[in-house]
Amino acid sequence: MDQTTAFIDPYGNNEQAISQLVHRVVDLVISETAKASERQPLPHMKGLWRPTQMPQEPVPLETIFDNLKVLIHHAMNPAHPGYMGHMDPPPATFSILGDIVASVLNNNMLCFEMAPSFTVLEKTLLKQFAKTFGMSDEAGGIMVSGGSLSNLAVISLARNVRFSTHKGGLAMLNRPPVLFASTAAHTSIHKAAMLLGLGIDAVINIPTDKNGRMDVIELERQVLLSKEQGKIPFCVVCTAGTTITGMIDPIGPIHAIAKAHDLWMHVDAVYGGALIFSEKHRHLLNGIEMADSIAFNPQKWLCVTKTCAMFLIKDISLLERAFRIPAPYMSDHDEGPNLGEISIQGTRYPDILKLWLSLQYFGIKGWSQLVDTGMMLKEFFLEEIHKRPFLELSCKPDVNVICFRIKAEGLTTAELNEKNKAMQQHLLKESMFLSLPDLHGQTWLKVVLINPNVTKTVINKLFASIDKFIEGVPV
Amino acid sequence: MDQTTAFIDPYGNNEQAISQLVHRVVDLVISETAKASERQPLPHMKGLWRPTQMPQEPVPLETIFDNLKVLIHHAMNPAHPGYMGHMDPPPATFSILGDIVASVLNNNMLCFEMAPSFTVLEKTLLKQFAKTFGMSDEAGGIMVSGGSLSNLAVISLARNVRFSTHKGGLAMLNRPPVLFASTAAHTSIHKAAMLLGLGIDAVINIPTDKNGRMDVIELERQVLLSKEQGKIPFCVVCTAGTTITGMIDPIGPIHAIAKAHDLWMHVDAVYGGALIFSEKHRHLLNGIEMADSIAFNPQKWLCVTKTCAMFLIKDISLLERAFRIPAPYMSDHDEGPNLGEISIQGTRYPDILKLWLSLQYFGIKGWSQLVDTGMMLKEFFLEEIHKRPFLELSCKPDVNVICFRIKAEGLTTAELNEKNKAMQQHLLKESMFLSLPDLHGQTWLKVVLINPNVTKTVINKLFASIDKFIEGVPV
Repeated sequence: MDQTTAFIDPYGNNEQAISQLVHRVVDLVISETAKASERQPLPHMKGLWRPTQMPQEPVPLETIFDNLKVLIHHAMNPAHPGYMGHMDPPPATFSILGDIVASVLNNNMLCFEMAPSFTVLEKTLLKQFAKTFGMSDEAGGIMVSGGSLSNLAVISLARNVRFSTHKGGLAMLNRPPVLFASTAAHTSIHKAAMLLGLGIDAVINIPTDKNGRMDVIELERQVLLSKEQGKIPFCVVCTAGTTITGMIDPIGPIHAIAKAHDLWMHVDAVYGGALIFSEKHRHLLNGIEMADSIAFNPQKWLCVTKTCAMFLIKDISLLERAFRIPAPYMSDHDEGPNLGEISIQGTRYPDILKLWLSLQYFGIKGWSQLVDTGMMLKEFFLEEIHKRPFLELSCKPDVNVICFRIKAEGLTTAELNEKNKAMQQHLLKESMFLSLPDLHGQTWLKVVLINPNVTKTVINKLFASIDKFIEGVPV
Repeated sequence: MDQTTAFIDPYGNNEQAISQLVHRVVDLVISETAKASERQPLPHMKGLWRPTQMPQEPVPLETIFDNLKVLIHHAMNPAHPGYMGHMDPPPATFSILGDIVASVLNNNMLCFEMAPSFTVLEKTLLKQFAKTFGMSDEAGGIMVSGGSLSNLAVISLARNVRFSTHKGGLAMLNRPPVLFASTAAHTSIHKAAMLLGLGIDAVINIPTDKNGRMDVIELERQVLLSKEQGKIPFCVVCTAGTTITGMIDPIGPIHAIAKAHDLWMHVDAVYGGALIFSEKHRHLLNGIEMADSIAFNPQKWLCVTKTCAMFLIKDISLLERAFRIPAPYMSDHDEGPNLGEISIQGTRYPDILKLWLSLQYFGIKGWSQLVDTGMMLKEFFLEEIHKRPFLELSCKPDVNVICFRIKAEGLTTAELNEKNKAMQQHLLKESMFLSLPDLHGQTWLKVVLINPNVTKTVINKLFASIDKFIEGVPV
């Protein structure tokens, strides 16, 4: 292989050869995606290609491209119009453009010196996001590589602020700290508790009401109970858009309890946060402006390429006061602390660029349309469920995440689970992918309506296929 | 703006329009990088462009491109031949290709179903990396978004294994856990201790010897002392390639102490791990095969685009036994636990693709050449320092990270620091960027020789410029 294309020559000597390579890859992956409807939403998942060993010598270019095509063909295919199983949309074009630029520039959000324009862009744009959520001028945020890291960062900050654990840690506390989240909260809350040395038992799981929202009466009861038990409540996580049933916890009432008991209120709006851009649906997030922190992932409903996640803090200076770990190898400057000193990550990719580019393309109005369309399709989908007495809804969702199943009466739970699994497989054969979550020990089907290629026509096709399954028509 | 390019149409209807957009961005960023030598290694860092507000309407395409160019011109420019200040190289072309493909496919390493081919690729390739480091068949690894997360994951696992903190956390321990790292270890070790609820005071900082390597006599003394003080030592971090002075701690002797005192031995080889690919220099890592865990970042010396980082575990099944947080919304399958359940991150970008593509292009031999060239340039650079009695070296580095300064005798520390800062500014004016770390409270200059555009000629130019500064020749 021609090793002269190893790097882009800064004197322009290999520009043409590099260009050819990059354009070839661009053409390959765009043309494969432009044919996404011809493949399956999920590929065959048996007998996947895996490299036998690390090559000693460079591999011939055509072999590389052949293997690359195999990898592409066995990738998840979220651009397929039948892909509606997870919170994983096909990516917005302008976010792809952002990735290309970011990749070639190879900047590093670790410090200002290693990413001057992107550091300033991140600080500025995230202040604007915080403002959009109704937070004050003291608020700001940081991008992280995925929502789990947002929840980790925020709960860590809440812990440090309350218990001054920055230096001395938790080992000497004589009463255990506890936090509260609903049983429908994301597993990253438990993961954060485990990582932070609190342990997963420190998460007190508050039952949901019949609609899948946190039961606030029970929350207050558990806060009081934990105090009686000698524990120290310090944080409550309110979920805006639960992973399986798409519910939004009652933000206002939870905030009232948080305030009364001096709890840090974190709103995990990684999914539902996008509602803030819709004039019509923003009210569903009323109260979020009172949060101490918010997690929001543009990589979900706003379709920015993965990863694109942020956390916003009511008082961003807390990160400097209760979280910062100084690094002696980075220069001082006028732009505040280096982001790597106040973030969980050190070296970090500039996700902010693709977020900014996406916003330029869509504008707030375009983002609003993504949200409004999703909410409209949710209503349409729910109507189709209601038309069918053999289907049941887990609860009426606040956002476009719908959890339902066949409710064949007279079946045991095991039989019912099997029947719903069989329906998922039937739909897969018809090129439609719904996921199969476990809810309270039972198998359900889940639909997430954020794929822009999912239209009313596709939904009609889905229900026609469901009807065929119920009627026993073979596919 | 034409909203029909918002997404790649899976029926092929907008392939041409999308292609045009992507190719335009590719041409822009490649041509700017092919002219990297004409800009400065660091851009002007005052008065950077920042957006005034979030646009309501889509922004005209030409305005977007104009602003994008401004962002590019104010980005760090690691492809510049004078860029040698940090462990941040220009990116290998084939890793850029990987980013482009990964971005368009938008898969998710959270679970097998959302990234079938990439999950299998990651598991397979990281086992091969573990084997390359001399680890056994039980070993394996996980990619993470940056080395700080590797150190966090590994120390968290070591803590959980030793103290069973997964469920109950640390609060009830009556003796504080402590870990050991040299004073030259990376700040992410302290960050991990803070995050994990151990507190930064739980990191016992072992002094280095006169060469900047961990003093192993002192390590053993401190382990014994901490036990006498009622603390519980559980982990020692051995650094292979320190951030400021490029030293490798004595791996074998540290392992002997770790074994004697039942400590988890983690080798932070995020930088120096690349040596394993060089037949000539691999011996510098002797003993690393005995580690309980290794952190290694191909994003540094191997020039894979950021982020590209991994951690390897001697017994990968420990992650399942002592770390896993199950997620009820992901399907079961035959490929072992979903990666999101045994990793700090949930949603995660498939960095493995660009790593694999880079390896295909270079082969192990190509990676070896990157390492050998860097080591050769280090020797060349050190010779130039030794020729100049007015310069001093902090210590003779094991890897191609060189920390030196002007040693003007008779100056106060403050004056000496100022003089070295002035030299850095002088070199910047001549388009050469060296970083300015703080070492033991004093200002030094740091060079990292991983930029493939840095040659002996460039180094000669650098020293000519240093000589001009010493002679007082104005630039």
